[in-house]
Amino acid sequence: MTDARTIWSDVERIRAERPLVHNITNYVVMNTTANALLALGASPVMAHALEEVEEMAGQSAALVLNIGTLSRPWIEAMHAAARAARAKNRPIVLDPVGAGATAMRTEAALALLEEARPSIVRGNASEIRALTLAESETKGVDSRHGAEAALEAAQRLSIRTGAVVSVSGGVDIIVGGVSILRIANGHRLMARVTGLGCTATALTGAFAAVNPSPLLAAAHAMAVMGIAGEIAAERSRGPASLQMNLIDALYELSADDIAARLKLEWE
Amino acid sequence: MTDARTIWSDVERIRAERPLVHNITNYVVMNTTANALLALGASPVMAHALEEVEEMAGQSAALVLNIGTLSRPWIEAMHAAARAARAKNRPIVLDPVGAGATAMRTEAALALLEEARPSIVRGNASEIRALTLAESETKGVDSRHGAEAALEAAQRLSIRTGAVVSVSGGVDIIVGGVSILRIANGHRLMARVTGLGCTATALTGAFAAVNPSPLLAAAHAMAVMGIAGEIAAERSRGPASLQMNLIDALYELSADDIAARLKLEWE
Amino acid sequence: MTDARTIWSDVERIRAERPLVHNITNYVVMNTTANALLALGASPVMAHALEEVEEMAGQSAALVLNIGTLSRPWIEAMHAAARAARAKNRPIVLDPVGAGATAMRTEAALALLEEARPSIVRGNASEIRALTLAESETKGVDSRHGAEAALEAAQRLSIRTGAVVSVSGGVDIIVGGVSILRIANGHRLMARVTGLGCTATALTGAFAAVNPSPLLAAAHAMAVMGIAGEIAAERSRGPASLQMNLIDALYELSADDIAARLKLEWE
Repeated sequence: MTDARTIWSDVERIRAERPLVHNITNYVVMNTTANALLALGASPVMAHALEEVEEMAGQSAALVLNIGTLSRPWIEAMHAAARAARAKNRPIVLDPVGAGATAMRTEAALALLEEARPSIVRGNASEIRALTLAESETKGVDSRHGAEAALEAAQRLSIRTGAVVSVSGGVDIIVGGVSILRIANGHRLMARVTGLGCTATALTGAFAAVNPSPLLAAAHAMAVMGIAGEIAAERSRGPASLQMNLIDALYELSADDIAARLKLEWE
Repeated sequence: MTDARTIWSDVERIRAERPLVHNITNYVVMNTTANALLALGASPVMAHALEEVEEMAGQSAALVLNIGTLSRPWIEAMHAAARAARAKNRPIVLDPVGAGATAMRTEAALALLEEARPSIVRGNASEIRALTLAESETKGVDSRHGAEAALEAAQRLSIRTGAVVSVSGGVDIIVGGVSILRIANGHRLMARVTGLGCTATALTGAFAAVNPSPLLAAAHAMAVMGIAGEIAAERSRGPASLQMNLIDALYELSADDIAARLKLEWE
Repeated sequence: MTDARTIWSDVERIRAERPLVHNITNYVVMNTTANALLALGASPVMAHALEEVEEMAGQSAALVLNIGTLSRPWIEAMHAAARAARAKNRPIVLDPVGAGATAMRTEAALALLEEARPSIVRGNASEIRALTLAESETKGVDSRHGAEAALEAAQRLSIRTGAVVSVSGGVDIIVGGVSILRIANGHRLMARVTGLGCTATALTGAFAAVNPSPLLAAAHAMAVMGIAGEIAAERSRGPASLQMNLIDALYELSADDIAARLKLEWE
C-alpha cells in the first residue's frame, strides 16, 4: 500500500540523502533530466565512457539506462555499468526509448532486459509492447488507448523478467507481477515537451535509490512527475514554460501538493 | 505565390498529420530543436547510429542534416540516412553549420550537397558563401549586409544544385532558381540565442514534410520562425526568456498572428 | 587590483569585440554555456572532432576544456586543440569536472594540466583537491567548508603549475601564486542548477580573451557569474527559472549592477 504520506516520505529521504543517480542517457535530455534530479533533491551524474562507467556506477545509489540517441559504444557501456551496479545490489532502471522503431533499439532494449536485469522498466505503451511483440498472441490493433493498450504486455514482461513495468500515458500504469497501480495525475501539455518520459525515468532512479520496493519507487516517481506537471501546467502558456515550471515545481513540491492532488488506485 | 493563408494551411497540416522529422543534428541544439518541432505540431526523432539511421529515415516524412559538432561517424550516418530518404522521395534539408570555419565543415557540407542532394539548404550568409567560394569571382569583401551579401552565392548554389537556398539574416532570403522571396520578420534579439538558425532548419523539415514545394516550405518555415520570434521578443527580457517564449509562441501560433505580422515579398 | 570599474571595462570589451571562445565541453551544458557566452556578448563555438579542433582553436580568442561526459576521442581532441591554442598564445581554461570521482577523470585532468598548460583551472573544492591529492600531506577530513577547504590545494596547484586556480563555492577563491582573491557573490539556489560551474568556466574563457591577467580574468568571471546569479535568484521560484533568469541577467548586466553588488576581497 502507498499513499500521499509514503510518497512524501520518499521525497524527504531524497532531499536529505541526496542519492547519487548515475545516468547513461540520451543527448536530448541530459540537461533537463540532470536538472529535474537536482530540483527533486538527488545528485545526478552523467558518464558514459567504458573506462569509467563501472567506477561511477559502483559509487552511485541507482543506475538509469536510457537508449535514446543510441550507439554501439554506449550500449557496451550500459552493460558494463549494469554489471557494476548489480554487483553492489543497486537498483537499475531501463528506459527503452524507441524500442519498436528500429531493430537496433529493440535489440538493445531486449539485451539490456536480459543481461542488465533492471528492477524497473519505464516506457510508453508502444515501447513496452515492442518488448513483448515476439511472444504476443494478439497481433491486431488494440482498441484500448494510452497505457491501457500495453497492460497485458506489461504484465507478461513483468512476470517473465521479474521487473516492475511502468507505462506512462494519460493514466500511468505500474505493474509488478500481479499487482497493478494506476496514477491519473499529469497534464496533456506534457506530451508536447521532449523528454518528459526520460525525466520520469530519471526520477524513478532517484526513488529507487531510497525505496527498496521497485513497485513503490516506480509509482512514487510517476505520481510526483504527474503532480509537478499539473502544477506547472497551471502556470504555463506552452510547452517550454511547462518544462521550466515543472522543474521549479519539483523543487517546491510539498506534502500538501501531494495530498491534495494524488490520484492513485491500487487494483 | 504564397501568403498568410497558405502558411497557415501548412501549419494546420503539420498539427493534424504530426509528421515524423528525423534529425541528425548537433549536440547543442538537440533539445531545443526537438521542442520547437513538438511545439509546432511535428514529431521529432533524433538518431545518428549508422546501424539505425536508414531504418529511421525510411519511416520519416523528412530528414534534417545539421553539421554542427560534427565527427566522422556522424558524417557517414548522414550520407546513409540521406540515401534511405531519397529512395523514398522524402525531402532532405541541410544546414551547413560552420561551413567556411574549418576545412572539415566545408568539405562535409560540399559532400552532402553533392551526394545527399538536399532539396533545401538553410544557412547564414557566410556559410552559404563558403559553399560557393571556390567558384566565386568576387573575392573581396561584399559591402552588402546580412543575407543580401549571400544573394549571388545563393543563386549560384541553387542553380548548380537544384536545391532551394534559404539564407537567414535581418531579412531572410529564399532562392529557388530564379525565384527570390524575402521575409522581413524576426527580431534582433534572436541572434543572441544559440541554435535558432538550427531551429529554423528543423522547422523547415516539418514544412517540407507537408508542402511539396521546397521553395514554399523553406519560406513558410522562415516566416513562422520570424513571427514566433517577434511575439516572443515582446514578452522577453533577454535571450533565455526569448528561447522559452519562442517555443511557446510556436505552440500558440494562430492564423491571425500570421496574417497580422507577415512581411513577405516575392521578387 | 581590481574593482567594479575594471570588471565593467572587461564586460564592455567582450560586448564590443565579441571574442570567439572555443569550447570542448560536456553534453549536459553545451546549450546553456553557449547561451551564457552569447548573452554576455562573446561568440561561442563548440567543436570536438580531432580533424578540426586545431583549426578552430587557432582562430579563437580563448579555449575552454571541460572534462564532463568524457571519452577517449574527446581527450585526444582537447590535447590537440590546446597545442594549437598555445602556439598562438591563446589562453586556455580547464574545468576538471569530476576529477576525483573516477580514475579516468583524475588522470585526464592531470594530463591536461601537464600538457595543455592551462592559464586558469576552475573547479569546485573536491575537484581541486583531487588534483593535488598525491602530494597532499593532510589526508584527513578538512573541517573548513566550501572553497576554503581547497585553499591550500589551490595554492600548491597554482605554484606547481603556474596556473591561476579558481575555486567556486559559497565564497569563491581565486589563487594566483601568492595572491588570493575572495568573491562572496552568488546565491545558494545556484547549486541546484546543473552546469553553473561549467558556465562559470565558459565565462572565464570570455574574460581571459580580453584580459591578459589570468588572475583578473578568473576573478571577473566569478564576480559577474555571482552577481548575475543574485539578480536571477530574486526573480526565480526555483532552479529552472534561475537558469533562465541568469542568462537574461548576463545580457542585461550593467555597470551599476556590478558597483552595487560586488563583494570582492584581495588578500
